[in-house]
Amino acid sequence: MRYEEFTIEGRNAVIEAFRSGKPIDKIFIQDGVQDGPVQTIKREAKKHNTMVKFVTKERLDQLSETGKHQGVIAYAAAYEYAEVEDILEAARQKGEAPFVFLLDNIEDPHNLGAIIRTANLAGAHGVIIPKNRAVGLTATVARTSAGALNYTPVARVTNMAKTIEDLKKEGMWFVCADMGGTVMYDLNLTGSIGLVIGNEGEGVGRLVKEKCDFIASIPMKGDIDSLNASVAAGVLAYEIVRQRG
Amino acid sequence: MRYEEFTIEGRNAVIEAFRSGKPIDKIFIQDGVQDGPVQTIKREAKKHNTMVKFVTKERLDQLSETGKHQGVIAYAAAYEYAEVEDILEAARQKGEAPFVFLLDNIEDPHNLGAIIRTANLAGAHGVIIPKNRAVGLTATVARTSAGALNYTPVARVTNMAKTIEDLKKEGMWFVCADMGGTVMYDLNLTGSIGLVIGNEGEGVGRLVKEKCDFIASIPMKGDIDSLNASVAAGVLAYEIVRQRG
Repeated sequence: MRYEEFTIEGRNAVIEAFRSGKPIDKIFIQDGVQDGPVQTIKREAKKHNTMVKFVTKERLDQLSETGKHQGVIAYAAAYEYAEVEDILEAARQKGEAPFVFLLDNIEDPHNLGAIIRTANLAGAHGVIIPKNRAVGLTATVARTSAGALNYTPVARVTNMAKTIEDLKKEGMWFVCADMGGTVMYDLNLTGSIGLVIGNEGEGVGRLVKEKCDFIASIPMKGDIDSLNASVAAGVLAYEIVRQRG
Repeated sequence: MRYEEFTIEGRNAVIEAFRSGKPIDKIFIQDGVQDGPVQTIKREAKKHNTMVKFVTKERLDQLSETGKHQGVIAYAAAYEYAEVEDILEAARQKGEAPFVFLLDNIEDPHNLGAIIRTANLAGAHGVIIPKNRAVGLTATVARTSAGALNYTPVARVTNMAKTIEDLKKEGMWFVCADMGGTVMYDLNLTGSIGLVIGNEGEGVGRLVKEKCDFIASIPMKGDIDSLNASVAAGVLAYEIVRQRG
């Protein structure tokens, strides 16, 4: 298991966890507590996009494992992010052309979990997510991935467009899922490929899209706009599987 | 809009709603209330697999629109289910061979919503779900369907195996998604087709599976067991789209 959830209790421990870069999913803070360390924790939480819930002292007492929460309990993920290089190395070890998912700001943890699950089963060598704004590897993601998180490496990068540029130098091609592109059945999706999936509402960002070699579109025969992001990722991934097979 | 959520307040109104077969999503019952009508409501809720939450009187007072909740508020869906015949008629009107999704006990409303969304965009003419055990058209389903519920008819049937038998007499073929079948790329999935998707944990039930003409398998190249149900439905639906196109 590369994933496990644990609690961090007490003001300094939580501040320290933020400073050391531990991925914190959510924080419970005692209602009405306003002192300096708690203000620091709220600022850090905002900066890291961590969910904060204000609860009663009684609730914290219930949640506490140490009995010394000092008004603050954080839930952190013990998941270790991989490096992009680890993903390429996994492909090399299997003697396969790299097949990588790049997620440009997926926000819903259920979608992220389902996509990691799909990446595993479609035979992708890893998943790359951005450091900011998007959802990270929370407990919900781990659960929704149905165990895939233990096998499929997930790397976090600061600048997705730059990562694509770097990987192009390694001989990879990038296909971005978006409307108004070439119907996926008409594209050659074999070889060393990166599949770029956009945000649930806004799709793939402009800077990232500009770096892609192709835009692949799923045929839309209905009345509404778009598939669920994890369904779209699955449909495109399996078109790649079909063509690679 | 074919969908709208509304509340039913008061014991008799809620009992009456159950008896008339209205689809009730969830019920709030006042903590500690144990009289006869409330026992009846709890029994009906159990029978219909309706979620029950016990809350304080203050919470019910907040939720109440009439001020006369008598300790019970139910949330019901105003969605009108279609008939199976309506789905076939939709195909006839478009001059297309019927393409229908049959869901054998999907339990997660997010999956049901995502699958209805996929059915719409894959050009399916409707979705058939079972009356018992499975999730019905709740507010969450409507929201997750991203509007597809307003376009794609959903019919509820008592006996899915019998429905398949009846539809076979109309010239339809049925393909069931399951492990250990023929790889989907090797099947002929054109013509009048019903795509059968199973329950999240248990897959397609034995009786339903026996009625299907083919078992289609999605190639699995990873370490875990299965795709998310809505992703699997999407991948198979788009293999059908590819072959029909």
